[in-house]
Amino acid sequence: MIRAVLLDLAGVVYQGEQPLPGAVDAVASLRQAGLRLRFLTNTTRLPRRALLSRLSDIGVRIAAKELFTPAQAASAWLSARQLSPHLLIHPALAEDFANLPASETEAVVIGDAADGFTYAALNAAFRKLLAGAEFLALARNRSFKDEDGELSLDTGAFVAALEYAAKREAVVLGKPAPDFFKAALASTEIDGKEAVMVGDDAEADVAGALLAGIDSALLVRTGKYRPGDETRAEPRPSETVADLAAAARWIVERRG
Amino acid sequence: MIRAVLLDLAGVVYQGEQPLPGAVDAVASLRQAGLRLRFLTNTTRLPRRALLSRLSDIGVRIAAKELFTPAQAASAWLSARQLSPHLLIHPALAEDFANLPASETEAVVIGDAADGFTYAALNAAFRKLLAGAEFLALARNRSFKDEDGELSLDTGAFVAALEYAAKREAVVLGKPAPDFFKAALASTEIDGKEAVMVGDDAEADVAGALLAGIDSALLVRTGKYRPGDETRAEPRPSETVADLAAAARWIVERRG
Repeated sequence: MIRAVLLDLAGVVYQGEQPLPGAVDAVASLRQAGLRLRFLTNTTRLPRRALLSRLSDIGVRIAAKELFTPAQAASAWLSARQLSPHLLIHPALAEDFANLPASETEAVVIGDAADGFTYAALNAAFRKLLAGAEFLALARNRSFKDEDGELSLDTGAFVAALEYAAKREAVVLGKPAPDFFKAALASTEIDGKEAVMVGDDAEADVAGALLAGIDSALLVRTGKYRPGDETRAEPRPSETVADLAAAARWIVERRG
Repeated sequence: MIRAVLLDLAGVVYQGEQPLPGAVDAVASLRQAGLRLRFLTNTTRLPRRALLSRLSDIGVRIAAKELFTPAQAASAWLSARQLSPHLLIHPALAEDFANLPASETEAVVIGDAADGFTYAALNAAFRKLLAGAEFLALARNRSFKDEDGELSLDTGAFVAALEYAAKREAVVLGKPAPDFFKAALASTEIDGKEAVMVGDDAEADVAGALLAGIDSALLVRTGKYRPGDETRAEPRPSETVADLAAAARWIVERRG
């Protein structure tokens, strides 16, 4: 019996600035069925404000508390430890790291810096790590579906680069970090046994959610999905469906 | 009884354009002792021509056949397989890949592209890998001692990035690839049991040589060496010495 639904955004609800076919109605049908919704994105090219505004623009109204982003998790992590961030992120995301207390102890924070992934910027982060800075990754996705429809390098590649060179392991704050799913789930006050995740990434969304104690996870064949993805990560999806509309029908049939 | 000596260049013989103290005389003393010398570098920011000219400028005269570079190994590898390179390398190195036969089948070749490691260039290589191109790495060193005396990111970081994102493993052609050591050794017509390697990289030089069947390997405390490096990779160095001058004395005492 499902009572809570965790939804990925890019590749599930929208692609770029356009909603995916049937996705807006699908979200509405989940709401009408009385399910509690949370939106979990690993996108780190846009701040929370812009994500909420993009959703609103395509006709999906959500409350700020329903949106979970890695930057938000990182900001809380840094704040709790009194650390200043050394940011290797997209400039648009900087506003999500404003208002942190100044500190002499630093943490390298890496997100999808896109063209900001220059040799100089990566090397500066590498040197901070060698000097003992903490190491936070907003995500470790391998690739994402780019504007031209092809897969492009995502944050994970650059996390792997720094991990290899510095012989350090990053603390990952976005999906598939179990704490990220658990924080979103905790805010619904519903148990993982009554929750489902929907995503287009077999590793970060699907396997991540299942390993975090979410009862089931649906893989959609939109976004970055490529044939065969359902067998490329363990645990495998509870079901692979065409898109969010099909996922919503699957969920509504099983609602608590 | 040592009859052949394999020497790393940067951090052992020279640093930047300057010879390391005592290094030029040390090479001369090895020659005078009747030892066969080979020079094995993982530097991929300079073509063979420039490496030979730099050595000559500092007073180390070597024959072209005594120098082994990853680009030379890669060019032979591509030629044998009739593959065209998709180059992600330093522009200065391009001349070492001239004269390869044109082919529709490609291989991504990654070296130390330095500032050429842009997001766009890395992403183009990533897409070639997804499309099925072969994947050659000229080296997989984690870091090198930069002009400012600090460690900087080396090729290995970017190899790791592409390996992670594409879920592929690169074929490494420079040190520590056993074939690289073996090709240099074979050209001396001396058995590995009578050979020694000298380097400043505990992984690529020292452990690599020992795993390739070279009898002994000396780690020098110059170049990228950092205290504790002698215990950071397995197998460990036969001996850790101050510099190439000390290494030459150690070797000459044991010459065959």
